[in-house]
Amino acid sequence: MAFQDILRHAQRTQQSLLCIGLDTDLAKLPRAFAESSDAIVEFNRQIIDATCDLVCAYKINLAFYEVFGEQAFPLVHQTLAHIPPGIVTIGDGKRGDIGNSASFYARALREQYGFTASTVNPYMGSDAVAPFLEDPDHGAFILALTSNPGARDFQHLRTRTGPLFETVVRKTLRWNTRGNCGLVVGATRPARLRRIRQLAPNLPILVPGIGAQGGDLHRSVRYGCDRHGELGVFTASRSVLYASSGSDYATAARHAARALRDEINAVRPAR
Amino acid sequence: MAFQDILRHAQRTQQSLLCIGLDTDLAKLPRAFAESSDAIVEFNRQIIDATCDLVCAYKINLAFYEVFGEQAFPLVHQTLAHIPPGIVTIGDGKRGDIGNSASFYARALREQYGFTASTVNPYMGSDAVAPFLEDPDHGAFILALTSNPGARDFQHLRTRTGPLFETVVRKTLRWNTRGNCGLVVGATRPARLRRIRQLAPNLPILVPGIGAQGGDLHRSVRYGCDRHGELGVFTASRSVLYASSGSDYATAARHAARALRDEINAVRPAR
Repeated sequence: MAFQDILRHAQRTQQSLLCIGLDTDLAKLPRAFAESSDAIVEFNRQIIDATCDLVCAYKINLAFYEVFGEQAFPLVHQTLAHIPPGIVTIGDGKRGDIGNSASFYARALREQYGFTASTVNPYMGSDAVAPFLEDPDHGAFILALTSNPGARDFQHLRTRTGPLFETVVRKTLRWNTRGNCGLVVGATRPARLRRIRQLAPNLPILVPGIGAQGGDLHRSVRYGCDRHGELGVFTASRSVLYASSGSDYATAARHAARALRDEINAVRPAR
Repeated sequence: MAFQDILRHAQRTQQSLLCIGLDTDLAKLPRAFAESSDAIVEFNRQIIDATCDLVCAYKINLAFYEVFGEQAFPLVHQTLAHIPPGIVTIGDGKRGDIGNSASFYARALREQYGFTASTVNPYMGSDAVAPFLEDPDHGAFILALTSNPGARDFQHLRTRTGPLFETVVRKTLRWNTRGNCGLVVGATRPARLRRIRQLAPNLPILVPGIGAQGGDLHRSVRYGCDRHGELGVFTASRSVLYASSGSDYATAARHAARALRDEINAVRPAR
């Protein structure tokens, strides 16, 4: 099954377009947790238990784990092992390199970690992306337009065929021969998201920033979904993980996730 | 001391502009080695012992290690522990992400691994690069123009102020307030390297691809150095590591490295 169908299936089964980013930061954990890297896995497990019927995907930003050095791999591995099958797992590493290096990164994400999909940086071009596309089951979300201020530095630069991020979108459409390409488009730019959805009507779009980053949820959902009201993956992290710093953090995370899922479902285009 | 001075010091002390990329691939190790990840460290140690008086830097592409999952961190760590002090170590991870994520990547490379410098992907803009620049001691080589065919997809795109890679160079010059920015420019494009050296006369430039990738060594060295004949870092990997597949691999690596160092020193501009 191509990744696109895997994602669609997860969204239908779970009746959710919500993705929770397990960007777990030791400094922000509820007071109940000790300052040790083991706490990360324990917290993640509780968040997954509290929310796994409400999401189509979990996203793990590898930076939050690599900061623990030797502990990084087991922390991610143990977290992934706790995610029920059928839910998409996105390895958010934004890797991008050439030849052998890209193949090794792709193998690390697909085989060593076992993610369903990865995020990929397009700057080095097609041969940096290709190894992530070899297995149709594995999705590659290519960074197009990100939600941060620095996105203006290069992504918006005018080229002959429009801003750079549009050129990335057009290339991604050509790379999508196996039905496993997607895009990353920040929720902080809904008008641009609309334009990108017009250019790429059938690609999955990962939309980070609907929570704490203050993206416009309603417009992001309207513009980010395909014509079936699917294939938009709307990601919140801090607003769910740290919904409460008290002992009710898991219940609070569940409430926050349910509210987001319902708000997304209320706005998504009719199926 | 700013990274730029650390690099210059290493190049003067070692009388070398050569960097060896420890892109160690189990499938290519000499026959004497078993097919186990431990062999990677043992091979790296022997290569380091055989070449450490001939180089200013070693570069470790993290992809070659991450493919071993849980073993990745110890393999890199044990390799780094064997490199004598005074030699620059470059963590070639090409990371790029925003906010907290970028800080965590920078901390992983600087503190957990302990590299002297990192390679950084510029696509996400200034806030993705900034955390790598906080510590003046730590260098950040920003990808400008890479040596692979896919570089044409985006890096060469015309923008209002020239090709995209030139815009990256101009931004990097502005980011260089602490003397720790550098650039990555592939050896396969010497004319472009000349142009980039004109734009950035005082930045370190990491030039991969002088060995197996077939870059033009003479022109790369002439154009890649600053006016003192320094700050170009010319990187070979396969042509040194696998100079012989027989039992003389370490001696062969030494000969290949010495020949490259001497060839570079013969061509570099007068000091």
